[in-house]
Amino acid sequence: MNDDEHSDSSRMEATVRELLTEMKDASETIVDLAYASLMYNSKDMAEKVEEMDRDIDDMKFAIRTKILMAVRTKEDAREMTGVLQVASAADRISEAAGEIVKLLNVPKEERPFINDIINESDEKIMMTRISPRSDMAGNTIDQLAVEASTGTKIIAMKNRYGWIYNPDGDVKLRAGDDIIVNGSQDGFNRLKKFASGELPWEFPEMEFAED
Amino acid sequence: MNDDEHSDSSRMEATVRELLTEMKDASETIVDLAYASLMYNSKDMAEKVEEMDRDIDDMKFAIRTKILMAVRTKEDAREMTGVLQVASAADRISEAAGEIVKLLNVPKEERPFINDIINESDEKIMMTRISPRSDMAGNTIDQLAVEASTGTKIIAMKNRYGWIYNPDGDVKLRAGDDIIVNGSQDGFNRLKKFASGELPWEFPEMEFAED
Repeated sequence: MNDDEHSDSSRMEATVRELLTEMKDASETIVDLAYASLMYNSKDMAEKVEEMDRDIDDMKFAIRTKILMAVRTKEDAREMTGVLQVASAADRISEAAGEIVKLLNVPKEERPFINDIINESDEKIMMTRISPRSDMAGNTIDQLAVEASTGTKIIAMKNRYGWIYNPDGDVKLRAGDDIIVNGSQDGFNRLKKFASGELPWEFPEMEFAED
Repeated sequence: MNDDEHSDSSRMEATVRELLTEMKDASETIVDLAYASLMYNSKDMAEKVEEMDRDIDDMKFAIRTKILMAVRTKEDAREMTGVLQVASAADRISEAAGEIVKLLNVPKEERPFINDIINESDEKIMMTRISPRSDMAGNTIDQLAVEASTGTKIIAMKNRYGWIYNPDGDVKLRAGDDIIVNGSQDGFNRLKKFASGELPWEFPEMEFAED
């Protein structure tokens, strides 16, 4: 293999790796968001799910094209078969989320069952508000390390500008924001004490930053 | 509707509800377990995934049969369509997990890529050991509320008797046990400090139990 081919193949690998990581991350959020759209009867949230589903589909096609164009050796081909398999699994998960949000077309009164199921699951979907007395107010999701500190993941939030779905870690929480999280009941009980200001937040930088 | 029919229909609802909740829970664990089997190159774990995949498939069929036998009115039918849709979404997710574990047939050297992807994801899979100095030793997963306290979920563990996959909350952790968890890097850093005994465990009963 000459240098040109080698750098082509490294570039391809870097792009495919990035795309596949993004697909995997998205496929892990989209299902929670789909269930949340049913819980809160939100067409908006369902549209975000459909948008993510389309993005994941596009990424799958992009990965396929890149791979088909760049694979040269049998070893490349074998490794890339695995990549295609993970991409197709992520796509399948996102299709499942697409199926779930289709239920929004059924009037809410005719699907009480589904909310019961979500409430009875190990992983529940719950909403709470950030109190002005909460240490969470004024900090970003990453600064708080919400998931590490409470076991709950913010999948959607409503601030003074409107709804944000699947918010990035650099989004700042403010007093009055509503957050929708996915997690266990224990985790939610813990989160609520932080969000209401009843418990002071333990900032991860001080308490359990990596050495 | 007479009383007999009504109680038939309630019984059916209770069973379907239980089955569907179990399917949803299983579909949320099986994908993590599938990625973990690749990370640790574990055929055993992959077999557990295949077993769960078959169980989920069986539950889907059981739900279908129950519904077809019991639906009597148009309202029943409409609500149950939603149930079938969620069941089929959970089944689709578990099939995706089945696809992921098939990659174990590719020799480990030929799939370095996949472990990189998992390491670069938001939700990672990591392993740590419970130290004799750790407060975690001697307590069950539920007593510790591991997920609420660290944001990481124990998806598999190895104790003196062997491996346990998707352990129940009443499983006790002991010094020397290895636990494989799914969660964010921040959460894992926090967990490691508890597991090594560097940080005392904050027991949820005392600190954030529901009022």
